[in-house]
Amino acid sequence: MFHHWFPGLADVHIVFNLFNYLTFRSAGALVTALLAVLAIGPGVIARLKRRGIVDVPRAHHPSADAPQRDPKANMGGVLIVSAVVAATLLWAELANPYTMAALSAILAMAALGFLDDYLKVVRRTPGGLVERYKWAGSLAFGALFAVAALYLVPAGSAEAAGSSALAQPGAPPETRSLAWWLAAPSDPFGPTTVNLPVFDEWALAFPPALFVLWVTGVLVGTTHAVNLSDGLDGLAPGLVAIASGAFAVFAYVIGRVDTSAYLGLFYLRGSGELAVFASAITGATLGFLWFNAPPAKVIMGDTGALGLGGALGAVAILLKAEILLAFVGGVFVLEAGSSLIQKQYFKYSRRRFGEGRRLFLMAPLHHHCQKKGWADVQIVIRFWILGVLFAMVGFATLKLR
Amino acid sequence: MFHHWFPGLADVHIVFNLFNYLTFRSAGALVTALLAVLAIGPGVIARLKRRGIVDVPRAHHPSADAPQRDPKANMGGVLIVSAVVAATLLWAELANPYTMAALSAILAMAALGFLDDYLKVVRRTPGGLVERYKWAGSLAFGALFAVAALYLVPAGSAEAAGSSALAQPGAPPETRSLAWWLAAPSDPFGPTTVNLPVFDEWALAFPPALFVLWVTGVLVGTTHAVNLSDGLDGLAPGLVAIASGAFAVFAYVIGRVDTSAYLGLFYLRGSGELAVFASAITGATLGFLWFNAPPAKVIMGDTGALGLGGALGAVAILLKAEILLAFVGGVFVLEAGSSLIQKQYFKYSRRRFGEGRRLFLMAPLHHHCQKKGWADVQIVIRFWILGVLFAMVGFATLKLR
Repeated sequence: MFHHWFPGLADVHIVFNLFNYLTFRSAGALVTALLAVLAIGPGVIARLKRRGIVDVPRAHHPSADAPQRDPKANMGGVLIVSAVVAATLLWAELANPYTMAALSAILAMAALGFLDDYLKVVRRTPGGLVERYKWAGSLAFGALFAVAALYLVPAGSAEAAGSSALAQPGAPPETRSLAWWLAAPSDPFGPTTVNLPVFDEWALAFPPALFVLWVTGVLVGTTHAVNLSDGLDGLAPGLVAIASGAFAVFAYVIGRVDTSAYLGLFYLRGSGELAVFASAITGATLGFLWFNAPPAKVIMGDTGALGLGGALGAVAILLKAEILLAFVGGVFVLEAGSSLIQKQYFKYSRRRFGEGRRLFLMAPLHHHCQKKGWADVQIVIRFWILGVLFAMVGFATLKLR
Repeated sequence: MFHHWFPGLADVHIVFNLFNYLTFRSAGALVTALLAVLAIGPGVIARLKRRGIVDVPRAHHPSADAPQRDPKANMGGVLIVSAVVAATLLWAELANPYTMAALSAILAMAALGFLDDYLKVVRRTPGGLVERYKWAGSLAFGALFAVAALYLVPAGSAEAAGSSALAQPGAPPETRSLAWWLAAPSDPFGPTTVNLPVFDEWALAFPPALFVLWVTGVLVGTTHAVNLSDGLDGLAPGLVAIASGAFAVFAYVIGRVDTSAYLGLFYLRGSGELAVFASAITGATLGFLWFNAPPAKVIMGDTGALGLGGALGAVAILLKAEILLAFVGGVFVLEAGSSLIQKQYFKYSRRRFGEGRRLFLMAPLHHHCQKKGWADVQIVIRFWILGVLFAMVGFATLKLR
């Protein structure tokens, strides 16, 4: 009889029901994170500037001599990371081990980046020393994440993780370790035929020590590559938005029994929640881009670069998709690769020919393009286009396995 | 015994099988169109410039007084449209009525735009006259498209259209009209429960004459809005890439029995092929953006704006998603809306107060933002961000129906 008095109740139920849909929650996380950054952005930027936390242009930067009328606020990564964490807390299943692992990765790496920014910008510690802290911290967290992935047992999380849309019925055991989630090639209770990709079989053949080394390497490499790419207004946030968007789709697909089977991929029960987390990253980085678009009012700093690099690396590791990461983050690979090749070839040629030679006009790659005469904005937009192209090629190769 | 001699045959079969996957064909169309534009772009741009087909800056344009060192080539839309058509011919089922209708829309409207560009740029016909031709041509094609949608009978297309992934078994009739495809609310042979959105029931209640008016209005409106937004380097191609990407996802979802049912949407048999077409548009516009990124080397002209506007409008009409178009193309709506409001309010206030007043500093909206002091690149990137935001909100509302 009540429902005659409250005719809206049925509608409320329908609307509430939406919150069970992973697609709806992912879209919600993207929109929430984007709007959150837009809402708190101006205030945070003004506060950072008042405290003198502004960008210190790097030496040898091609545009370092350009007059800097209005200094950019630094440490803008706090905006991004807060929005990602808030949107994830709001929309994702928190008891899910994937959610917890991804949140710890972005928080830990962002904290490390924050420390670096603090030392560099506030304390004016010499850059070399900060570099050393950064590497040590990244390696330490990478090892920790890998060990956790092997041994951590998040009690009582199995039930929650199994409740993702279209999950198979079947009684899950009382507790399951994160390592179980990472190592399980497919849902043992599901009717799905398993199609284990080659590189994954290879990863399972790793002894634990090598697995720790691998995970550490991926995390440190991603973090370093995102950091290197953060040299032009708008470049890094746009690329991260593209990569995380691609991972959101991938997480959705392999987190469902039906879609993963249809596309011939492995099924990772509960991993669909990472679609929410990855969508939150897309939303937050797009929101940040609003203020970071050239001429930027704020830059993300190490807080952002390390946090986002750590988050992307962690998502790739959790989804067993490190190879996909190399495609989806193809521009990051080009940036880091060009920098590495430049340094190594310089050392080699100095030994070999007595003089150091360079393969690129300047490294990383975006500086090479600057020297080639591309405008900064052209480089940024063209690298984004390459990012989309690489992501699509990465998806296409998923089928070729 | 042969397979021992040709050990690659089984692999060839597997790879060939990929071409049945709609996702793979859509990704293929995007990548092909993007690479095609990148490959032929420099040659086409050089040829356009040699023939003197360059941009004539509009009067009253805020940046019209800026010195134009290197003139931009005009009619760059030929690049986009060729790439879209080539990629669609390569990857889509051609006998499918949706494919045919979408291809005719982009070709017809691009031809009209080409004529406009030719009159304006080569013949130097006064702008007002060209405007009149443009409106007349758009209205004529809109009416034609609507009538075709109601009466055209593409013989023998039913079988091919039914072969999309996961289509239901069941004998299709010998011939089906495009109108049948447009009007069919769901697959009558499929087991799916139909969930007809409200606006669609309303559309079906249209008498044919009103339907023609509606379709014409949508096509002309979209075309006009894309044209208006094409005022800043990179703006229109980026927005079209976002909107067509969103439509590619939507076409995929409602073109499959299972996904449309899962999301509670209507199922349009065979419409999945529009995912290939829409992906080709995303790829071609991203490729064009490579050369159109500020400072632009080429602009799309009416050839591009009318072709792309017509294509987007046609896809929305064919997918019965005109309301979704208003979200996914939300920035186009803002651009066209601000322009319309500005004009109407100016007229009204002149009548009412004796002097014409303006609500925006200048219309369309991107000029208002210029006057507000935003840099051109900021406007472009921020409008793209709004485009993504609107698209996500549009998707979320799909569930709320």
